[in-house]
Order: sequence, then structure tokens, then C-alpha cells
Amino acid sequence: MSEPMVLHGFWRSSASWRVRIALGLKGLEWADRTYRLRAGEQRSAAYLDLNPQGLVPALEVDGAVLTQSLAICEYLDETHPAPALLPAAPILRAKVRAAAQVIACDVHPLQNLKVLAKLRTCGLEEEALTSWAREIIETGLEAFAHLIAGNSGPYCFGEQVTLADICLIPQLGNARRFGARMDFPRILQVEAACNAIPAFADAAPGKQPDAEV
Amino acid sequence: MSEPMVLHGFWRSSASWRVRIALGLKGLEWADRTYRLRAGEQRSAAYLDLNPQGLVPALEVDGAVLTQSLAICEYLDETHPAPALLPAAPILRAKVRAAAQVIACDVHPLQNLKVLAKLRTCGLEEEALTSWAREIIETGLEAFAHLIAGNSGPYCFGEQVTLADICLIPQLGNARRFGARMDFPRILQVEAACNAIPAFADAAPGKQPDAEV
Repeated sequence: MSEPMVLHGFWRSSASWRVRIALGLKGLEWADRTYRLRAGEQRSAAYLDLNPQGLVPALEVDGAVLTQSLAICEYLDETHPAPALLPAAPILRAKVRAAAQVIACDVHPLQNLKVLAKLRTCGLEEEALTSWAREIIETGLEAFAHLIAGNSGPYCFGEQVTLADICLIPQLGNARRFGARMDFPRILQVEAACNAIPAFADAAPGKQPDAEV
Repeated sequence: MSEPMVLHGFWRSSASWRVRIALGLKGLEWADRTYRLRAGEQRSAAYLDLNPQGLVPALEVDGAVLTQSLAICEYLDETHPAPALLPAAPILRAKVRAAAQVIACDVHPLQNLKVLAKLRTCGLEEEALTSWAREIIETGLEAFAHLIAGNSGPYCFGEQVTLADICLIPQLGNARRFGARMDFPRILQVEAACNAIPAFADAAPGKQPDAEV
């Protein structure tokens, strides 16, 4: 009935990774269009026409282009309600969204490729860059661990996978790349539970067509 | 019937400012608890108990503590539906959320007080800090202007004030503080329309009880 969705992304982009998980959880089919970020392909005129920010991901759906990974995930949740990515009660929805935003607003934007490149041009050495990224990730994971501490698991907010899990798992990939400390038992338990779900496992960077491994 | 809401915030925090606008648009009453961020009051043990991130805002409501400004705004929208802060159609909701997230994820986190302080400890001089903030804001506003260009106004996405306006107006305050270029006619037109609404005007930093002007 409608055109297949097209996900414009990059294997190692954690924001693209979030959308891949959400698409997989919803059991949707999509086509991948990949961009080599280090080569600047996301700043080509053709891509800027799709997304004026020049960032991945973007999702083409029903003739529209959606950007920003959390907005895309909420769209998928509203248009394909099962399984739900947010609980039903408003207070709980707010808590899940807040945990997701700890990562999407306060961690990931400060340690992504683009920002590290910018800091490099400001004169920061590689060691300072790594310790910058590491500190931001550790502080964020510590706050995240507090925010989910009241729930018993297996996932961040109980028995249901939510947007919080979708943001957490890709961030843990970055955490390891930067050598951040990972002594967050509850977070590692959530990670193991998520990775046992095919939608999470299949969304991992190493499994993508453009992976350079 | 229920306790009055308490907003933990700071007059010049643009994330607190967003929540003040949303509360005002919904016609809600709330009490202010303010924190002098430069004095580090948001890192007191008592506040960390409320919000382990040590960031403002936090909203106490019905015995719960909600954090992250966009999550709080969505909560207010879900629990007090009129006037709606998001359009009804999923594609439009996604576009509004994406514009809001351009600011909340890709602009504000990179130029807030905390990050600038951290960059200062990395050895960046004041001039480099200002030009860093300015460039991030200008790039963000340019993308934001593209994302709202298809709508005729008066607000970002047409006749209805949305989350996008709620994020835009506080960011323009920061833009001026850093001397960013402001040659975005459509954005300035939206700003004028918003500031004619009491909920926006009353939420301005200079009108807050803790304003240092």
C-alpha cells in the first residue's frame, strides 16, 4: 500500500542505531541508505535537501522526511502501537522519556564525532578528547543508573522495552570505545537482556551493510 | 485536590524557561524553587536526591519528580491536553518534535554554562568559548529555519503554538547573549508572535523572582 521506508544512516552512528532498534522492535521492513560520515557524505547537497542539519539518521516515510532519532522513534510508536515503546501512565512515560533524554541531550551530543572534531580544531589533544568523552559518558551513565534504580528489570523500566533501553544500548557501545568505566551492574544486566532480543542484536553496528570491521 | 506543582529552576536556564512557558500555556499554577547555578546549589545533596543529574529543571508533581524539560513538557501536554503543544497528525508531531530536538539535543547542550565551564578547564580562552557557542547556535538556527520554512506562521508550525516554539524562544535569548547572527526573518517573526502571548512574556528570565538584572 505504501512505499517502503528508507533509513538514511551510518553503521556506527548511535542515533541511527536507536532507529534501527525501534524499526526492528515494531517488526517493520526498511531499506538502508548509508553515508560515510568521515568522508562528509552527509553534507552532500542531495542529503542536505533531505535533512538541512546534515546529520543522520533521517527516515523517509509516506513521502515525508523525518529527522532526529527520538522524534522518529515516537513517530514509529504512534503509528505502530505494538509493542509500545512507552508505558501507559503519564508519570511513567515522563520518566522513560527523561532517561532517554539524559542520553540523547546530555551525553551523546557532547561526545559524538562532529563535536570531537570541533574540539580538535580548538586545539584539544587526543588524550584530552578521550578523557572529555569518557567523563561525559560516565557522569551520564551514573545519572541514568539512578533514574532506573527503582525498577527491577529485566529492562530499564521493568518488563517492557522502552525508549530508555533504545537509547541506552547504543550509548554503551560508545562508552566502550572511549574506555569509560562500566561498573554499573544494573545497566549491564539491562544490556544483556536487550541483546537477547533479535531487534537489538540485528541493529548492532557490526551487523550493518556499511560496517567497516 | 492535589498538591501544587513545584518547579525547581533558575531564571536564566533555558530548559527551565521552556517548562515555565508550557506551564503558563496550560494555565497551571506552580511554586518556584530556585537554585543559583553559578554557586553550585544544584549540586547540593538535597537537590541531587531530587534529580541525580544535578540539573535544572525538575518538576515535583503528584509526589513524583520529573526531569528533562522536553519530557516534562510532554507530560504536561498529556495530562492537560488543552491547548495542545503538538499537532494531531503523527507526521506533523514528528516534525515539531524534531525541530524542538534540534535545539534541545544539538544546540543547547553544547553551549550551556556547564559545558562552557568544562571547555574552560580544557584550556579554551574566552574568545574561543564565545565563538564556539556562537557557531553552534548559528548552525542550529539555520537548520531550524529550514525545518519551519514550509509553514506560514505566525508560529513555527502554523496557527498553533507547539513544542518547537517553546524551545526556540529561550534559545534566542542565548543567541543574543553570545552575539550570534540573527538574520533569520521567519524566526524573528515567530519570536514576536510568541512574545505577544502572556505565557511566553511571563516566562522570560527577567521576570523571574531570582533574576539578577
